[in-house]
Amino acid sequence: MSQTNQPLVGVIMGSKSDWETMRNACEILESFEVPYEKRVVSAHRTPAWMNEYATTAQGRGIKIIIAGAGGAAHLPGMVASQTTLPVLGVPVKSRALSGLDSLLSIVQMPGGVPVGTLAIGDAGAKNAGLFAVRILASTDSDLHQRLAKFQEEQTQKVLEDSQL
Amino acid sequence: MSQTNQPLVGVIMGSKSDWETMRNACEILESFEVPYEKRVVSAHRTPAWMNEYATTAQGRGIKIIIAGAGGAAHLPGMVASQTTLPVLGVPVKSRALSGLDSLLSIVQMPGGVPVGTLAIGDAGAKNAGLFAVRILASTDSDLHQRLAKFQEEQTQKVLEDSQL
Amino acid sequence: MSQTNQPLVGVIMGSKSDWETMRNACEILESFEVPYEKRVVSAHRTPAWMNEYATTAQGRGIKIIIAGAGGAAHLPGMVASQTTLPVLGVPVKSRALSGLDSLLSIVQMPGGVPVGTLAIGDAGAKNAGLFAVRILASTDSDLHQRLAKFQEEQTQKVLEDSQL
Amino acid sequence: MSQTNQPLVGVIMGSKSDWETMRNACEILESFEVPYEKRVVSAHRTPAWMNEYATTAQGRGIKIIIAGAGGAAHLPGMVASQTTLPVLGVPVKSRALSGLDSLLSIVQMPGGVPVGTLAIGDAGAKNAGLFAVRILASTDSDLHQRLAKFQEEQTQKVLEDSQL
Amino acid sequence: MSQTNQPLVGVIMGSKSDWETMRNACEILESFEVPYEKRVVSAHRTPAWMNEYATTAQGRGIKIIIAGAGGAAHLPGMVASQTTLPVLGVPVKSRALSGLDSLLSIVQMPGGVPVGTLAIGDAGAKNAGLFAVRILASTDSDLHQRLAKFQEEQTQKVLEDSQL
Amino acid sequence: MSQTNQPLVGVIMGSKSDWETMRNACEILESFEVPYEKRVVSAHRTPAWMNEYATTAQGRGIKIIIAGAGGAAHLPGMVASQTTLPVLGVPVKSRALSGLDSLLSIVQMPGGVPVGTLAIGDAGAKNAGLFAVRILASTDSDLHQRLAKFQEEQTQKVLEDSQL
Amino acid sequence: MSQTNQPLVGVIMGSKSDWETMRNACEILESFEVPYEKRVVSAHRTPAWMNEYATTAQGRGIKIIIAGAGGAAHLPGMVASQTTLPVLGVPVKSRALSGLDSLLSIVQMPGGVPVGTLAIGDAGAKNAGLFAVRILASTDSDLHQRLAKFQEEQTQKVLEDSQL
Amino acid sequence: MSQTNQPLVGVIMGSKSDWETMRNACEILESFEVPYEKRVVSAHRTPAWMNEYATTAQGRGIKIIIAGAGGAAHLPGMVASQTTLPVLGVPVKSRALSGLDSLLSIVQMPGGVPVGTLAIGDAGAKNAGLFAVRILASTDSDLHQRLAKFQEEQTQKVLEDSQL
Repeated sequence: MSQTNQPLVGVIMGSKSDWETMRNACEILESFEVPYEKRVVSAHRTPAWMNEYATTAQGRGIKIIIAGAGGAAHLPGMVASQTTLPVLGVPVKSRALSGLDSLLSIVQMPGGVPVGTLAIGDAGAKNAGLFAVRILASTDSDLHQRLAKFQEEQTQKVLEDSQL
Repeated sequence: MSQTNQPLVGVIMGSKSDWETMRNACEILESFEVPYEKRVVSAHRTPAWMNEYATTAQGRGIKIIIAGAGGAAHLPGMVASQTTLPVLGVPVKSRALSGLDSLLSIVQMPGGVPVGTLAIGDAGAKNAGLFAVRILASTDSDLHQRLAKFQEEQTQKVLEDSQL
Repeated sequence: MSQTNQPLVGVIMGSKSDWETMRNACEILESFEVPYEKRVVSAHRTPAWMNEYATTAQGRGIKIIIAGAGGAAHLPGMVASQTTLPVLGVPVKSRALSGLDSLLSIVQMPGGVPVGTLAIGDAGAKNAGLFAVRILASTDSDLHQRLAKFQEEQTQKVLEDSQL
Repeated sequence: MSQTNQPLVGVIMGSKSDWETMRNACEILESFEVPYEKRVVSAHRTPAWMNEYATTAQGRGIKIIIAGAGGAAHLPGMVASQTTLPVLGVPVKSRALSGLDSLLSIVQMPGGVPVGTLAIGDAGAKNAGLFAVRILASTDSDLHQRLAKFQEEQTQKVLEDSQL
Repeated sequence: MSQTNQPLVGVIMGSKSDWETMRNACEILESFEVPYEKRVVSAHRTPAWMNEYATTAQGRGIKIIIAGAGGAAHLPGMVASQTTLPVLGVPVKSRALSGLDSLLSIVQMPGGVPVGTLAIGDAGAKNAGLFAVRILASTDSDLHQRLAKFQEEQTQKVLEDSQL
Repeated sequence: MSQTNQPLVGVIMGSKSDWETMRNACEILESFEVPYEKRVVSAHRTPAWMNEYATTAQGRGIKIIIAGAGGAAHLPGMVASQTTLPVLGVPVKSRALSGLDSLLSIVQMPGGVPVGTLAIGDAGAKNAGLFAVRILASTDSDLHQRLAKFQEEQTQKVLEDSQL
Repeated sequence: MSQTNQPLVGVIMGSKSDWETMRNACEILESFEVPYEKRVVSAHRTPAWMNEYATTAQGRGIKIIIAGAGGAAHLPGMVASQTTLPVLGVPVKSRALSGLDSLLSIVQMPGGVPVGTLAIGDAGAKNAGLFAVRILASTDSDLHQRLAKFQEEQTQKVLEDSQL
Repeated sequence: MSQTNQPLVGVIMGSKSDWETMRNACEILESFEVPYEKRVVSAHRTPAWMNEYATTAQGRGIKIIIAGAGGAAHLPGMVASQTTLPVLGVPVKSRALSGLDSLLSIVQMPGGVPVGTLAIGDAGAKNAGLFAVRILASTDSDLHQRLAKFQEEQTQKVLEDSQL
């Protein structure tokens, strides 16, 4: 995968405060040595920049976009509507409704424009990273090996603690 | 108001199937003789057209945008993010979640980009029309008179039926 | 806009404790130099005062009413029913149900009496202020310019932080 | 109780369409021979008439008010705020949200203004009638006897069917 | 009302930990000098004692029962099923679901057995006390006067703070 | 198991209308030749009969109670509080809230009084029957064999249709 | 019951962090001297180990399985699908949705594979322990006596505090 | 892509009745000429077959698994836990809770095992198909072209109807 630094995954988020959540996606990508870029791209405050990001990502070599947002979370869906890349959505936990609004805003897309949605919050961000790895691994046997090893180690760690 | 046909209100909706709901907004505007235009503008299937609509509406003389959508309803918020016009959002009743997803996707906008949200479904569409009339009436004394008369008649109709 | 202090926006709230939320609306109005008044007006504890407020606001030159309340939040709807002014509703976050009750009590108005509803809590209050500015800006080119500048700066701020 | 026709219970509802639900309250009152009046009183479309109803009911000899409404259901709470009579609220099933909005709008009243809330829909309307009977029965031994008999018969009916 | 100490209101709650909520009901009753008794009566842990309480309350001169409980809150409904007294239910805020479970368990009673339900938590408990006062005031002109005064003072207090 | 007709499972339900749901439990018990009895036992309309049922079931040889109810569903919890038998609760789908109220009223029992709760509606009733069979099978090898066969056949049926 | 240490109840949980909740089940089992084993068994991270656990438990003498998990909680249902033992499910309180996701993931099983579900969190875990005791007590008169005593003491404790 | 019939996508569903929903995924795959297989694979009724399917899919050349299920929907998560392939989850609309249970059971996966979740019902199934196409298109320029054309046509269709 990794002879260059050309980012393969674009991790974007609606606001700087989403970083605490979205770093979980980035940490996974780093641990798998998948080159990525991370940006704040706000659907509502920087629509032109979002449109530009969405329409140019593929041309720059990005293979997968991970987009996190909270509340009326439009970023993942709007990006998905302007690219042919697979877009993963991470519902960031919101203040009043704990991310239920974020989840529904991201997952309930109309037929025609898919967003692969992960869980609310940290677990969802981590899993967005892993989903990206799963996609990339299908054409990168080296990465696939690391993924298989990751899952084995994850299993091993639970087994070790299994006796409580 | 009405010496020309220049539309003052833009009524847009995410899909043709939303028309059954959104016609309630248009019927109100017609009954008040407020010139309006109506368009299908899909945030997800026609993002470029949505961006164009949002950024040019004011220049064409539109004063208020009414946007209806269902499910992960991004249209009102995305339009609001690309104009300085007041944008009213109508959550269209969705199949699985009865419009709760539409409502949260429209109303839970982040600070900075307001959408004035009305009720789910027909009542909300009708009220979006009336809210537009209320805004326009504040600088159109003729319209204001008609609005006051509308509210009186509405009151009268309830009073007449009051004895059941 | 501003050669006099005649308030153009009435910011009301159901209880003193709502001020922490509603100050976000007032700060926006101040930053745009829109004259406003702020009052505690309780639908349930001061119904006569609410009726008076609602029926006299327009006569005193108020153009828009922003009403915030929590729980079984009746203030925005009851004020809207007694004026022809546009009324914006802010659902204040409630103790047990985090503002879901406030939101539904405000937004689910029957056809005939519109309340333009914003998000739960601080973001909603801020956006109520901005929605009022959008309305006023349509007949005040000076204000419109400031609004356009505000949105540009908001965009700029995100762009500056975009690289994380 | 019943030498005169002076109504003791006021059954009011926000719209004529609520009658299908609220008739369940009236049928109970009739079966107990409790004199009552029924009116359409809309918080939002006839606020002045609502205020008049609420403030004069007690003077006219009404002892209990039963108020049914749907959606952003403000009638019970607004009436309760303008009388010292006990007010019972019936959440009418709403179109989109099945009465969850009605329920929260009625029951979540702030401290100071109580509304005794019953179940959503027909069962709630019937029980509002029965709750009124329970209140009146505490100072009317004849009515109390009929209430005790009603409960026995209700029990008996279940017991008879108990074997399926 | 008060030449004797014979309790008129029975305030019961499902567990000792509900006291923090239910004390709000008792404080109201005390401030109105309404004699009351308070007891822990658990539907689930002391069903026989609950049955005894419910069936004997009226005989002991109790006029109204206020019952608070959380979670699968069966106390109010089960007491209502075994008395002809009016029973008021207070949904205590629960740990996981913030009292939504308590509310639905109390309010959604089947036709035939009414529970007049108040808001979740402290406000609901306070209002249960006030609802009891409203019932008792209808046959106690002295109490009625105090209730009217209470509502006036409540209004006055808001008006004084109205200017923020 | 079956040389006598002594019922081992008591299937009770809050109202005759619950039979359409609860028959699914009985059909399972019949197909496993587990003797059972079925009764309408209403927590709210026949509390004394419910208490009697709950306290005498074990003495009559009942091993497991299956209780179905809808809305504010108190039957399973109240029976569980008056017996040491395992009690299974089936939330019957309710009219307004589709059984969410039934589910929370049954499952959210306080520590000390367990109700083993199954799914809302038909599937839950069927599974209550199967859960009873699982319990009984642990001390009845004949029944255990039939249960194992049932699960195999269930598996087989899916496998046969697996190709669509 | 207890001449050997052969565990009769298997208490399993999806992750080590569920122990804080699930210890409540174990404490009950200990207080009743019911031999049990406890294990971390993750449906998602150790599927093979889960399958092994589920398919071998009965052979090792386990009579009842208690399974706790949070979020998309698949452990109880997946274990139930691979055994004929009764399986009790404990929804662990989740971060974003407070265990509502856990509850629905556990309780809404399809017809054919039952999971007896308890309340969200600590109360549910405690009750899972008690439900297991209720099952075991039906064939262990010594245990049954201790259970009856437990319920009496539980009653007694409430009665002692009843006067507040 | 298509010189052979070797399936690249595995479309599985928890029960035959899910086919009405899941056919929407298959129709998309067919229209893009992506070879796929479809199977009923029940997590709860055929766990061994599910495990076999999950662990062997990759070896047989499957690149992406689409799994649909309703209620306590464990299929997508359990398959994801036993493969390194990307797994897409489709929440099938359920009877009582309209698919909210299905959605939460699928999307709220713990960190470590990702399921890319789509909308409830038909739209979600269609989008699962499209998401699979997006993944495959990134290494198949022919498919990518067809995808781009599909999105253009989709846009075109809305634009043609845009005038209503």
